[in-house]
This record gives sequence, structure tokens and C-alpha cells, in this order.
Amino acid sequence: MIYMDHAATAPVRKEVLEAMEPYFTKYFGNPSTFYTVGREAKKAMEESREKVAELIGANPEEIIFTTGGTQSDNIAIKGIVLKNKNKGNHIITSQIEHPAVIETCKYLEKNGFEVTYLPVYEEGIIKIEDLKEAITDKTILITIMHVNNEIGTIQPIAEIGKIAKENKIKFHTDAVQSVGKIPVDVNELNVDLLSMSGHKIYGPKGIGALYIRKRTRLEPILHGGGQEKDLNPGTENVSGIVGLGKACEIAKEELEYNQKYLTKLRDMLIEGILSNIEESYLNGDLINKVPGTANFHFVGIEGEGLVLLLDGKGIAASTGSACSSKKLEASHVLKAIGLEDVDSHGSLRLTLGSENTEEEVTKVIQATEEAVKRLRSMSSIWNQRENKRKEDINNKCTSCSLE
Amino acid sequence: MIYMDHAATAPVRKEVLEAMEPYFTKYFGNPSTFYTVGREAKKAMEESREKVAELIGANPEEIIFTTGGTQSDNIAIKGIVLKNKNKGNHIITSQIEHPAVIETCKYLEKNGFEVTYLPVYEEGIIKIEDLKEAITDKTILITIMHVNNEIGTIQPIAEIGKIAKENKIKFHTDAVQSVGKIPVDVNELNVDLLSMSGHKIYGPKGIGALYIRKRTRLEPILHGGGQEKDLNPGTENVSGIVGLGKACEIAKEELEYNQKYLTKLRDMLIEGILSNIEESYLNGDLINKVPGTANFHFVGIEGEGLVLLLDGKGIAASTGSACSSKKLEASHVLKAIGLEDVDSHGSLRLTLGSENTEEEVTKVIQATEEAVKRLRSMSSIWNQRENKRKEDINNKCTSCSLE
Ligand SMILES: Cc1ncc(COP(=O)(O)O)c(C=O)c1O
Ligand SMILES: Cc1ncc(COP(=O)(O)O)c(C=O)c1O
Repeated sequence: MIYMDHAATAPVRKEVLEAMEPYFTKYFGNPSTFYTVGREAKKAMEESREKVAELIGANPEEIIFTTGGTQSDNIAIKGIVLKNKNKGNHIITSQIEHPAVIETCKYLEKNGFEVTYLPVYEEGIIKIEDLKEAITDKTILITIMHVNNEIGTIQPIAEIGKIAKENKIKFHTDAVQSVGKIPVDVNELNVDLLSMSGHKIYGPKGIGALYIRKRTRLEPILHGGGQEKDLNPGTENVSGIVGLGKACEIAKEELEYNQKYLTKLRDMLIEGILSNIEESYLNGDLINKVPGTANFHFVGIEGEGLVLLLDGKGIAASTGSACSSKKLEASHVLKAIGLEDVDSHGSLRLTLGSENTEEEVTKVIQATEEAVKRLRSMSSIWNQRENKRKEDINNKCTSCSLE
Repeated sequence: MIYMDHAATAPVRKEVLEAMEPYFTKYFGNPSTFYTVGREAKKAMEESREKVAELIGANPEEIIFTTGGTQSDNIAIKGIVLKNKNKGNHIITSQIEHPAVIETCKYLEKNGFEVTYLPVYEEGIIKIEDLKEAITDKTILITIMHVNNEIGTIQPIAEIGKIAKENKIKFHTDAVQSVGKIPVDVNELNVDLLSMSGHKIYGPKGIGALYIRKRTRLEPILHGGGQEKDLNPGTENVSGIVGLGKACEIAKEELEYNQKYLTKLRDMLIEGILSNIEESYLNGDLINKVPGTANFHFVGIEGEGLVLLLDGKGIAASTGSACSSKKLEASHVLKAIGLEDVDSHGSLRLTLGSENTEEEVTKVIQATEEAVKRLRSMSSIWNQRENKRKEDINNKCTSCSLE
């Protein structure tokens, strides 16, 4: 199998699984207990917290473990606005956030909060001017993602953070798609809260972390035995936590190399697709983009058909984000960058990982070209278009010969 | 090591870990995707749902996966009361619930709900009469745990469920400590919602399930990509889910045998401790109790010291619930069954698992006897008591000789 859907999830690395295994069966204790097997679990957990902190330039005390990116986003956003609701009720976010942020904002809108969804224009990036204009004296939270999961564009987080700071507004970023892929430093980025997820960086599913800057207070949204500073109560997922720590350690070591390697592979992929397939386009900005992500649209076809044909050739690719792929609506991200629904439905997301090779990229280009051709040969939209074009040419020629 | 803290957590069974492993590395796909490796993950998830459902007599469509017992309790309780808040604001629970329920109820009390905490008396069991009296026309939820995590007592869930049904009140039970240990059938128990957790039944930590009876509507408390019927959004923890399914399958197969085996071991443990250690007492009812759980108190000592001495001998035991063991307050459960704080602080919880043996039980009895003796020799409370007793005997003898 050629796996090119790393933005949806990644396989657990061998080293990560090996690090986790003893915590299922040997050091299986509950970290809240006093005896040896519990203390061993607790110790591993705290070592893991250090590794997570190190990857993003934080202090270990500023990290809480969560059950994934979605929970991190929920704990952060609701936690801040519920804690500060006496100070204001306005939230600023962008139009291209992950559902974990968008749906949370929509829920808050139904509960007395007001939300501004900043536009991102054709490049898929917000404008700082828009942000400045959106801020009111009621604004209590800005939440803008670092890297978009569909088109890979990078937002100007450090700049946004600076403005947030100047205006004394808490700033959260969903960094699920940036951590481990580009340099992320919570101080350089000026963020108060940052969400990350294990399974996007070769760690296990069901584990994530939330960075919470010292002295930032959150209202808990889950209640129980007080674990993780009362913010994520419940017996800690020790093996998952150990896995996340190991994944962060590896990500840090390999970050520089992978950035270059994946940029090279991605550019090869983009070049190959755009030059070999007529009427193919890249969605979103090419420059401000995470390495490894490429999102295309092909005129006249349906992305679902493309994904199925590629699957038939052993290639795993996506029509967009995994989360919204159940729904038949057009992607809200592609809409936000100005794509018509019909083009949006013809989109394909390929997201590379460090285990992908140039050979795989070549195969994917070829397979995509063949699949697009086959789908277009059955596509009434495409055929109408083609007929019209041929007609136009004929008309031209006829008129030529007449001259 | 002799591990006797199975109510805190259990090791992952070998078969469970083996079942999980392929889902970290081979079938690692995101279950929301269309291609083969994603569909394999989805298939495994649905098979697991069937196994969970089978253990508790439910339909697979009535099961959602959660991140553990705490999240199940939060989703269920808040979900019901927020959905039904126009019908009333009254909740009935018991005084001995797990913090996942108690703290959730306390939070709701601060947000306009009223909560009745039913007493449990010396036996640790609620009285049906109390329940009937507590019901008002504003009651929208009854949440009472099946088996208590500290003293192991079993509540009359089926009867409570009958009353709830008659009064058209939704009924949730936290069955984290009963599932897999005693027969649990959602229809026999008349419950609308039931929480369970993987790591208490030899499954992994960080995974649980919530049974939601058909046509029971919940307000989501977490928002995101719509997974698990919108109630637990986020990429599914596939390996954890597979592990939970396997653990449920094994629990079902071994339930009958383990019930008998653990009852025998537990009775041997209780008999051994009570007959060998003076001034030792069992906390909570002996009859209505889950197999495997025994909670004692020893006059004149501190439970923490006992746990540390036992740890020194390679025995893992608990002073009470793992969750509250960080706090120095006396257990709310032991308080509810009428223990004075001083006795409560001298308590020890031993909870057996199927891998424990008679030989281990014998060793634990002996080690506990020695440890209690040692602690008492250093205990001023005990020594004062002893001196007073000796004085009393002397006084008696003096008075005897005088007669
Ligand atoms: C009765 C009871 N309910 C809920 C929980 C919480 O479960 P988890 O640790 O999986 O969140 C526990 C165990 O900690 C428990 O014993
Ligand atoms: C940008 C972004 N945020 C949040 C999430 C949610 O993370 P998780 O699946 O770990 O809940 C994802 C992935 O699904 C994502 O890509």
C-alpha cells in the first residue's frame, strides 16, 4: 500500500509501539497510587510530559494530556470563554478551522457568545488587518489554527499572538497539523494555549496534549477525580501518554530532515500532477504551506470516485478532511478559499509522510493521471465541456477557411 | 509482585494486547476514510462494538465508545439533564458515587440544578423507600452506581430502574466496577444509560463505553467531527476500541468461573484478616458485594503507612479509591457508611483479580498482620488504647483482689 493520507492519521512508529508496550502489561499501575507499579507509571507519564514540552518549547507543568486534538480544542476554547464570560462574550476565529473548533464555536454562539469567522481569501490565510478590525472590548478569545488540515496553509500565528497580547486577549491555536511538521515554539508564537494530537505524528490515537501558559485559568468542562489539573479527569492513559512522548522525541530529532525531505517530495508531486493532468489546479497558497500537504482539484470529476480508483491501485488518499468526508457537503475550507462547489467536489488531498518515497510519488502521479482520465471519460460535465471546446475550435477553423 | 488493587486498574491481558497490536501499525487507518486501511479499522471498530454490546445485553447501535468511565459519566449525566432541562432540574444520586458522578453533580448544582444525595447506611446500600420519597415532579435523572469502587457493595439497580421507569425518569448507572465482574444486562437492570471502562476489565486505559438506550436523547458536551453519534467527536482510538472489545469477550467467557473463584479468594482473605488481626473490621455489607473486593479498617493505624509497608513486601494495595488517594480527606464512601474519620484513615482496600492465587492471599494476610503489628507498635493512639485497657484490667484485678 502507498499511504498518502498522513493528515488524516499516521501509522504508529515501531519505536513508539515498543516504548508503549511495557505500560500495558508490566508497569500497568494507576498513576494515582502509591505503590511501585503505580509510581513507575507516574514517572513515565512525567517523563513523557517533558518530551512533549520540549518539542514545543514549553515547561512540563504547562502541558496537560488529553484524549486527542478534539478534546484539547474543546477544553481550551470552552475553558477560556466560560472562565472569562464576565469580561466579554466575543470570540474571533477563522472560516477554515477544524470542526473541533468550528462546531465548538457554533455551540457557544447558541449559548450567548458572539463569534467572528475571519475570511482567508484565495491563499487560505487570514489578513492581520481583518483581525485588528474584528477585535472589540468584548473579545475574550482568539482561536486560529496554525496549519490547515485540508490545504496545509500556515497562518501568521506569531503576529496574531502579538496582537492578542497587546489587546490582553487569550490566544489559542489548534496546532494539530503543525506540531512535529514545522518548528513550533509557544513563546515565539505568542500563544497562551496550543492543541496537539498523537496520531498525526506517528503516535497512537486517543491521546493528545494541551499547552496552557502559566497562570492561564480554565473552567473545567469535564468533572471527576482531579487528574491533569482537574481539566481531564479519569485514569490516565499511561501507554498512550508514553507513546505520545516518544513520538514527540522522534519528531524533534527528525524535524529538520523531514521538513526538507517532505518539501521535496511534495513539490515533485505538485509538479507531476499539474504538468501531466490538464485542467488540474492546486488549492491554497503554495508558499505558506506545511511540507507534505498538497490539495488539488480536477475539473469535471468527483473526488470520491478518484479516491476509490486510487484505492483500487493500493493508494490511500483523501477527498478532503477525514472528519467531514462522511458528509456530502462541499468542504468549508475549499469554499472559504473561493472554490465553486463543483470544483470542490473534484478535489483530492495527498499528504505525505516520512516513510513515503520518490518512487511512490511517481506511481501516485501516474495512477492519478490514469484515474482522472478514466473518470473524465465517464463524466458528462467533462464531455460537454470537451464537446464545446471542440466545437469552438471547429467553428474557429471553419471561419478560418472562410477567410 | 502481588497485585491486589484491581479496582484501581488491571494489567492488560496478553490476548488483549495481541488483538490491539495490528491496529497500531498495520490497520492504522482513520475509520472515517473510504480506502482499505481505513475501512479495515472501521470494521474492527464495529466488531468491537458488538462484543461490548453482547457483554451487557445491548444492541451494538446502543453503544458509543468513550475515553473511559469518567467521560462516559460526564456525557451521560450532563447530556440527559441539559437535554431535559425544560422538564425539570432535579437529579437523584447517592452519597457514595465515584468523583466522576459526584463532581459532575456538584458542578450542575452550581448551574441551576438540584441534587439529592441518598444515604447508604452502614451496609453501603441505598433504601428504595428513600428513593421513592426523593422523587419530585422536577426529577429528570436518577444516577446510581452499580458497584461501589471502595467497598464493593451492589445497589438494587433493577428495582431502582423499575421505579425510574414508572416515574418516566431517565436512569443512568455507573457500572465501571460491575461490568465483567457480575452479570450485567441492561434490560434486566432497567437502565437507560450505563457507563463502563476498559482498564478495570483487563483492557487498556483511555477507553470506555456508554450504553444509551434506543431513543434516549443526549445533548453533546464535546463538539467536533461528529464521531460516535456526535457524542464523542475526535478520531477514534481504534486500537483501544479493539482492546476493549477483546476484554469484553474474555470477560463474558470467564465471568461465571471468575465470580466463583474470586468469591472464594475474597472470603479466604476476609476470614484470614479478621481472625488473625485483632480490632480489624470489614467495611460495608458482606453479602451484597462484588466478588473480589474487601475493605477493612484497623484500629490505631494509618492506611498510608500500611500501603507503604505492604509495597515494601511487593504487595500492591490501596487505602481506598485511587482517585481520592491524593487528597488527605477521609473517604466520602467510608464516611457515608458511618465510619469516624479516625477509623477511615486506618482503612485498607484489597481488590482481587483472576490472576491472584490462594498462595498470594495467604501471603497478603500474613504481611498485613505483620505490618499492622509494626504500625501499632509505633502508634500513639494504639498505645494509649492498650495502656488504658491494661489499666482497666489491672484496676479490675485490683478490685478483684480487694473483694
Ligand atoms: C465506579 C467508578 N466510576 C468511574 C471511574 C472512572 O473510570 P476511568 O478511570 O476509566 O475514567 C472509576 C475508576 O476510576 C470507578 O471505579
Ligand atoms: C487541525 C485539526 N484539529 C483537530 C483535529 C482533531 O484531532 P483528533 O482526531 O485527535 O481529535 C484534527 C484531526 O482530525 C485536525 O486536523
